[in-house]
Amino acid sequence: MTTTRQVRLAKRPQGRPDADTWNVVTEELPAVGAGEILVKVDLISIDPAMRGWLNDVRSYLPPVGIGEVMRSLDVGTVVESTHSGFSVGETVSGTFGVTEYAISDGSGVERIDLAVAPAATWLGALGITGMTAYFGLIDVGKVQAGETVLISAAAGAVGSVAGQIAKALGATVIGIAGGPEKCRMLTEEFGFDLAIDYRSENVLRRLRELAPGGVDVFFDNVGGEILDAALANLRRGARVVISGAIASYNAEKPPPGPSRYMSLLVFRASMTGFVVFDYADRYGEAVAQISKWLAEGKIKPREHVVAGGVDQFGTTLEMLFTGANTGKLLLAI
Amino acid sequence: MTTTRQVRLAKRPQGRPDADTWNVVTEELPAVGAGEILVKVDLISIDPAMRGWLNDVRSYLPPVGIGEVMRSLDVGTVVESTHSGFSVGETVSGTFGVTEYAISDGSGVERIDLAVAPAATWLGALGITGMTAYFGLIDVGKVQAGETVLISAAAGAVGSVAGQIAKALGATVIGIAGGPEKCRMLTEEFGFDLAIDYRSENVLRRLRELAPGGVDVFFDNVGGEILDAALANLRRGARVVISGAIASYNAEKPPPGPSRYMSLLVFRASMTGFVVFDYADRYGEAVAQISKWLAEGKIKPREHVVAGGVDQFGTTLEMLFTGANTGKLLLAI
Repeated sequence: MTTTRQVRLAKRPQGRPDADTWNVVTEELPAVGAGEILVKVDLISIDPAMRGWLNDVRSYLPPVGIGEVMRSLDVGTVVESTHSGFSVGETVSGTFGVTEYAISDGSGVERIDLAVAPAATWLGALGITGMTAYFGLIDVGKVQAGETVLISAAAGAVGSVAGQIAKALGATVIGIAGGPEKCRMLTEEFGFDLAIDYRSENVLRRLRELAPGGVDVFFDNVGGEILDAALANLRRGARVVISGAIASYNAEKPPPGPSRYMSLLVFRASMTGFVVFDYADRYGEAVAQISKWLAEGKIKPREHVVAGGVDQFGTTLEMLFTGANTGKLLLAI
Repeated sequence: MTTTRQVRLAKRPQGRPDADTWNVVTEELPAVGAGEILVKVDLISIDPAMRGWLNDVRSYLPPVGIGEVMRSLDVGTVVESTHSGFSVGETVSGTFGVTEYAISDGSGVERIDLAVAPAATWLGALGITGMTAYFGLIDVGKVQAGETVLISAAAGAVGSVAGQIAKALGATVIGIAGGPEKCRMLTEEFGFDLAIDYRSENVLRRLRELAPGGVDVFFDNVGGEILDAALANLRRGARVVISGAIASYNAEKPPPGPSRYMSLLVFRASMTGFVVFDYADRYGEAVAQISKWLAEGKIKPREHVVAGGVDQFGTTLEMLFTGANTGKLLLAI
């Protein structure tokens, strides 16, 4: 029998999740059955989407139920296997949840190649994070070389990869982030052309100065006032890609929408939402392309790994909402 | 010399235009020069877009200047001509403005064929109104037979034509309008499948009942709460077509945007704005198709003609914002 610490949903949060949201429990896992694997979780991906999974509403995935192990994407090591597809010692990714150990029948589990990139990058630039940036920019945003691309939460997990992909595609890239250190990283480490500090600058006015002709693609992870500022600065035919809206995930009632949405008419622009899981059958294409850019140095992966195990899950998740992380936030077990 | 009454912009309105917005003046027109025509205006198109033209902001057309004749699309009769392309007695359409007589060099002026449809219909189903409905549904909304199409301000000029075009394309059509009489007209006269009275019904809940699978295309002329109600009831892959936002045209500060815009992500949907003038080189295609539908009885044109001449312009424009008109609102000179 294997003993594991796990994080279970205690109650649905009103507003920002806090200590009362979670129960950290110690459980005994059953024995590994036929065709199953036991995975020791090494790294847990901490994602803004997790907040949405806590709400009891119709969405692209069912909510996490009260008492259930919190859903997460993880990388781990196979420590027992009766499954013909997996051997002990292999490194795998899957939706194992916020737990130290998990038993799986192998569905949705993939072996990952540590010769291509370390485990953390497989949850970042080569994981759902990178897939979101890739399909959002290329399929939804239809970025073309020479266009101007604006990215919000640009120092975050998806934003930092999206900006580097846009650069690799030949675009001029402007990032919006909070604070001088993040803005410095955008231009000096991630190769963005320009950065706007939303904490000290008026984004609407600054954007008008930096992109007087307007932006062609806005890849939005934030929503709220930043979305409005971008809507005021579009170029004709612009595409606004709705990847997320972290500014409103903890709102207790629906926050105001983008009051400048009629800019879509003035600029003949579109605003389109997408869910990365719809592109699952094309992840291979994206992994191949992003691996190539990683090898060429065109994308520098950036992970922010917090130590401490599942007991630190709640405080680590909070970091997303205070902007405390740069790059992909991960919890090491 | 020709004497004409004209409506000129006296001052930019804050909120809804009122008597102070306009100067109704009597002017002497100069003599008709070489290559010009003198047009006696018969009918003036009264459009929600007029409200936008009064604001001193960057938009798809320059604002009407203080002291200028108010911009409008009209049908009139050529009463003098030194232009080789036009003869006295011909009926023409053009942007002559809110005036009894106008001198034009012929740019943007088109002869209209009263054998195809009466003058009023050339400003309605065969005019910019019909063009807006046609290109908005077909090019932007990409309506397919068998889909569910929702239309707001459905008893208005664009909405009533849009609903009939969607029916002609084989869609199931739901209209939103204000009051039982307009709703009766939608289903009994314009052939809509279903109607929702936004004055007496909760649009969000009623829509969920009438279209439990969600709508594929929402053709929005209204904005505000009605847009939010529709966003909550989309089918996966839905297209929201932003044709107008009459609910907010008189707002003194930007009204809240659609707080449910993140539905675009949940439903993998798009929201796209368009300006009908971009399709000018394809008006011929739309006029040919709509004329055919008119001849087949698939589209019943509906015009609401107010008598009284240019002095009634202000009060006639107000009718748009109180929902007093059904179908295309026109002012007869």
